[in-house]
Amino acid sequence: MGALHEGHTALIRRARRLAGTKGRVVVSIFVNPKQFGPSEDFSRYPRPFSQDRDLCESEGVDLLFHPSVEEIYEENTSVTVTEKSLSSGLCGFSRPGHFDGVCTVVDILFNVIRPDIAVFGEKDWQQLAVIRRMVRDLKMQVKIQGHPTVREEDGLALSSRNRLLLPGERLMAPRIYQALQGAAMESEVVPAIGVIKRRLGRDLAAIPGAEIDYVEIVDEATLAPLKKISFGVRARALVSVHFGSVRLIDNLPMKFNG
Amino acid sequence: MGALHEGHTALIRRARRLAGTKGRVVVSIFVNPKQFGPSEDFSRYPRPFSQDRDLCESEGVDLLFHPSVEEIYEENTSVTVTEKSLSSGLCGFSRPGHFDGVCTVVDILFNVIRPDIAVFGEKDWQQLAVIRRMVRDLKMQVKIQGHPTVREEDGLALSSRNRLLLPGERLMAPRIYQALQGAAMESEVVPAIGVIKRRLGRDLAAIPGAEIDYVEIVDEATLAPLKKISFGVRARALVSVHFGSVRLIDNLPMKFNG
Repeated sequence: MGALHEGHTALIRRARRLAGTKGRVVVSIFVNPKQFGPSEDFSRYPRPFSQDRDLCESEGVDLLFHPSVEEIYEENTSVTVTEKSLSSGLCGFSRPGHFDGVCTVVDILFNVIRPDIAVFGEKDWQQLAVIRRMVRDLKMQVKIQGHPTVREEDGLALSSRNRLLLPGERLMAPRIYQALQGAAMESEVVPAIGVIKRRLGRDLAAIPGAEIDYVEIVDEATLAPLKKISFGVRARALVSVHFGSVRLIDNLPMKFNG
Repeated sequence: MGALHEGHTALIRRARRLAGTKGRVVVSIFVNPKQFGPSEDFSRYPRPFSQDRDLCESEGVDLLFHPSVEEIYEENTSVTVTEKSLSSGLCGFSRPGHFDGVCTVVDILFNVIRPDIAVFGEKDWQQLAVIRRMVRDLKMQVKIQGHPTVREEDGLALSSRNRLLLPGERLMAPRIYQALQGAAMESEVVPAIGVIKRRLGRDLAAIPGAEIDYVEIVDEATLAPLKKISFGVRARALVSVHFGSVRLIDNLPMKFNG
């Protein structure tokens, strides 16, 4: 979606390494209207294109794909790719239709570019899981490579939306990650999902100016909310918090199974 | 879906010609559970596999792709490709979910095989139009080639379901095509869609043992029912008729614009 930051730079560098000298690295920049709800921030989503282009050039990107909305969506488009299991909760609950928009545009981008490997950030964990599921179920010939979240020095997960925070909100925002870290540490010693989840909710609720959208501890692959710890199931805490109209998300693996 | 007949043979020969000596012809045989409704004939759909294989061999098919249901659909599959405009009427009205099943399986087959060209019969006109729309909207890199309906000497459109007709029904079934031909001929001289549609309905209703599912005259690309003749819009009559539980479909272009 553009408005590239160091998180995107890390994805580009990862792609550059994976592609080697013979492969080509393609970056798509497309603010996708179909993944914004009617009351969301499509029009005010940042679009600093010339900076983005300069970054891509300096990172050795071979092709910058920057289509218009009309190039991606045909007139009277009537086809949608829908994922109905992993998409319904978490961000999907407060953003109905969001992941249909994500799946549809990613499928279109894959069909146009036909990448061998596509790199996505783990910050948008639900998106990554939904895309993995789409690729699995539709048997797309592309390998999905997740890349760890890149953070500011104070721990805030990099996001193009961070620049929309007011100064006071920006000061408080790192406490989202601190709450996740606290939960992860406690999960090593307290093997009880309910306890960790309550602690996480309490720590997030204590951030001045923050309003919780959701706090969940889920199976990291299926995104099913976990009630108890099971052998072989990797638990991950996923949270969403609003500062005013700016919605931030973050996630971290829990350590129940060591 | 297998149960190959001369209509399929014509598609295979068309593919063989299009592929030339360097290209490869792949035939998929897969009776797709997701395109059958709960009360439909999935279990009794004919599956004469060894005959199908022999036919493919003798027609110079390079690869016969005959996967199991488990090979096509992952456990707990949750991703669907949906077309919502062309799919809702006609066969889609009496078969809810049918075209979601068609789009999803065709997308999977395309992702596995990655064909340059895919040949579909015009007998299933709505299916062909829906697939063209899916390919257009999702920007799939495949050319869709329609092939004219192949008919018995008495005019009945070839279909794997014809063999399920009782002898008396089989004798009456060619009157579907005769009704379409009558409508096409009259459309050359009577430029009134309502008149032609009523004539077609009357002729189909007069077939002993037949029950009409639908009779429509539509824009052949968008499948929108036509009220009046418009320059540049190609009109096509699409009909569906039951004999007992056997559902037959057929279609023919009308000649309003010469």
